[in-house]
Amino acid sequence: MSDAVSPLATPFPDMPPIAGVRIATVRAGYKSWDRDDLTLVTLDAGTTVAGVTTQSKCPSPEVEWCRQVLPLGHARALVVNAGNSNAFTGARGRAAVEAIAARVALGTRGLPSDVFVASTGVIGVPLPIDIAEAGVDAALQAPATDWRAMAAAISTTDTFPKGAMAQAVVDGRTVTIVGVIKGSGMIAPDMATMLGFLFTDAAVAPGFLQQLLDAANAKSFSCITVDGDTSTSDTVLAFATGQAGNAPLASFDDAGADAFAAALSDVCLQLAQLVVRDGEGASKFIEIEVAGAESDASARIVALSIANSPLVKTAIAGEDANWGRVVMAVGKAGEPAERDRLAIRFGDTQVAEAGLAVAGYDEAPVAAHLKGQHVRIGVDLGLGEGRATVWTCDLTHGYIAINADYRS
Amino acid sequence: MSDAVSPLATPFPDMPPIAGVRIATVRAGYKSWDRDDLTLVTLDAGTTVAGVTTQSKCPSPEVEWCRQVLPLGHARALVVNAGNSNAFTGARGRAAVEAIAARVALGTRGLPSDVFVASTGVIGVPLPIDIAEAGVDAALQAPATDWRAMAAAISTTDTFPKGAMAQAVVDGRTVTIVGVIKGSGMIAPDMATMLGFLFTDAAVAPGFLQQLLDAANAKSFSCITVDGDTSTSDTVLAFATGQAGNAPLASFDDAGADAFAAALSDVCLQLAQLVVRDGEGASKFIEIEVAGAESDASARIVALSIANSPLVKTAIAGEDANWGRVVMAVGKAGEPAERDRLAIRFGDTQVAEAGLAVAGYDEAPVAAHLKGQHVRIGVDLGLGEGRATVWTCDLTHGYIAINADYRS
Repeated sequence: MSDAVSPLATPFPDMPPIAGVRIATVRAGYKSWDRDDLTLVTLDAGTTVAGVTTQSKCPSPEVEWCRQVLPLGHARALVVNAGNSNAFTGARGRAAVEAIAARVALGTRGLPSDVFVASTGVIGVPLPIDIAEAGVDAALQAPATDWRAMAAAISTTDTFPKGAMAQAVVDGRTVTIVGVIKGSGMIAPDMATMLGFLFTDAAVAPGFLQQLLDAANAKSFSCITVDGDTSTSDTVLAFATGQAGNAPLASFDDAGADAFAAALSDVCLQLAQLVVRDGEGASKFIEIEVAGAESDASARIVALSIANSPLVKTAIAGEDANWGRVVMAVGKAGEPAERDRLAIRFGDTQVAEAGLAVAGYDEAPVAAHLKGQHVRIGVDLGLGEGRATVWTCDLTHGYIAINADYRS
Repeated sequence: MSDAVSPLATPFPDMPPIAGVRIATVRAGYKSWDRDDLTLVTLDAGTTVAGVTTQSKCPSPEVEWCRQVLPLGHARALVVNAGNSNAFTGARGRAAVEAIAARVALGTRGLPSDVFVASTGVIGVPLPIDIAEAGVDAALQAPATDWRAMAAAISTTDTFPKGAMAQAVVDGRTVTIVGVIKGSGMIAPDMATMLGFLFTDAAVAPGFLQQLLDAANAKSFSCITVDGDTSTSDTVLAFATGQAGNAPLASFDDAGADAFAAALSDVCLQLAQLVVRDGEGASKFIEIEVAGAESDASARIVALSIANSPLVKTAIAGEDANWGRVVMAVGKAGEPAERDRLAIRFGDTQVAEAGLAVAGYDEAPVAAHLKGQHVRIGVDLGLGEGRATVWTCDLTHGYIAINADYRS
């Protein structure tokens, strides 16, 4: 992790162990650094799994592997490599993933298809198989460690370890969901992609777990952006060990399913927001709420258009209530919008309404709001009932410094 | 115009007057600056016109006005206001545009529908009608001036005046096309949108002129990006006075039509590239050529995905041959692409091929190429015959300084 911690960092929460989950981290040595960079999570028999992966048309072999084994619905291990994403490495990269799965299966007397693999770091360099295999062997012997150690071991350019948890009562039993995540851009290639892992002791059928993760993802990981650049490796996996002893959740008709779904969504949203808080160069956490769109999907497109606009992001960095740039970003989104119905709010202050600046609006609360670290922009398109909220960070000299001022 | 001239600036070319075109510039005073900010171009009877305008769903009233009168196909005057875009100003903004058209019509004994209006500058402030009308009155009395004066008077955050010309032989007569343009971002709200104006003495039927302008636009203005942000005011208009005396061009069957089309495309491309050369904070001019796509349209989407990626743009600013970021941008474009067929070139050096880095490629010519001001990135998707070339600039501290480090 980097030395300069994001000004938007939050403390790592207390997170309990999850029954049926054992974490080990070791230094495989993917880079010449003095830190753990290989994580091996072993999972007891009966663990179900669900996952979502990048929309990139050029995904990493790890992503392809996960997509292939996810439909089986069960998992016994997860390996995360930090420092080398193994993306765009052709057949050699695929061989590394298969070697890791085989090595873990050998060490745990399991099946390679129960081993999930994720890697993050430089693109275009095949993951060295010898280093990975030696790392797996060491991790199989290493003592168990905690969530904070895992959050640190999976990180790359992250400036702080990121975790979140929530609990729910299901079938009379309190179940726990914990998650760790890494990432400080959708991608900041060379050294950052978003990888997130959730673990719960609840028993959940894999199809239903996938349904819940898809829904949570749509309102969390799919609603954040740092720079609009999509990783070749983005992966979120959820593992359910079932050791809480509840009757397995298989649909929303089951008691506690709603509570579990809400807790899962809560953890996903917390994790997603932590990634924004560690956005490269971020000095402000920005929440963009779009209402009055023709549909929720349309609202999300408009909100992301605002969140990805370099001119909106630099305006917020400059603490400038430049609603003209918000109009521009609404206009370029390509979704239904009518200038003369558009209303824009900074914090709680309406600054534009019905196609015009609000005459003589009070600038003092707007200026005060923009000086804070949490900036809220509200847009009402005035057309329908569609809504969406997305989160991003501002665009500062820090982003340029991280991404231009060094050589790979 | 700004004091610090872009390092990519080129000298203003010698451009002859166009018969039937009279230019006047005056200081209307849209801002408290000591420069001309209103341009009135009067056009002789018989002038035809074509135009393309922004795709924004929230266009300025000027854009709406131009769209309304363009189908009539003839023009007698053009008014360009700098310092206030009049965008997002509702009925009051529309009233200002109509007042300007009426005032010019009164002064020239013409029709308001023959008057084209474009404005650029701050969003959300209605254009002051009294200042505009007094400016028009002054311009009607002002002495004629030249293209360079017009290029300066229509500029806002531009750092140098931008013009281009070309000639063609049509029907035995040499015809001239000149153009001026302003803009240093697709939009840099408060103070920059792209406005371009072309003038020719050729006689061209308005429908054919529109066809040629659409085709030229598709390969020029639609293939540049500074920051991916689309203006509410983008407008390109082409005026043909017909005073060269050629038989009017009405289709590609007419002698000289191909030569005229080529000259028009040439001027559009020169103007478009000048906007990139004045991109906010630009230190490198970047040409991105995508080949091997399933279609030309698909190639353009992939090329623009690369050109708009902040991670690609910062890598070039850092003179870093980071082809992993190019892979990422290809992958996120959403168009057909296969990792294992992708090839990437910096300058003339192939750095990746068939899903792998080219083993031991010579880094010296790549490093030398990236140190230059003109960087070429070539991508071959290996799928089909589709091709496109787009132009952009790098993303530097200068962009952040211009857009974040001041308050509106």
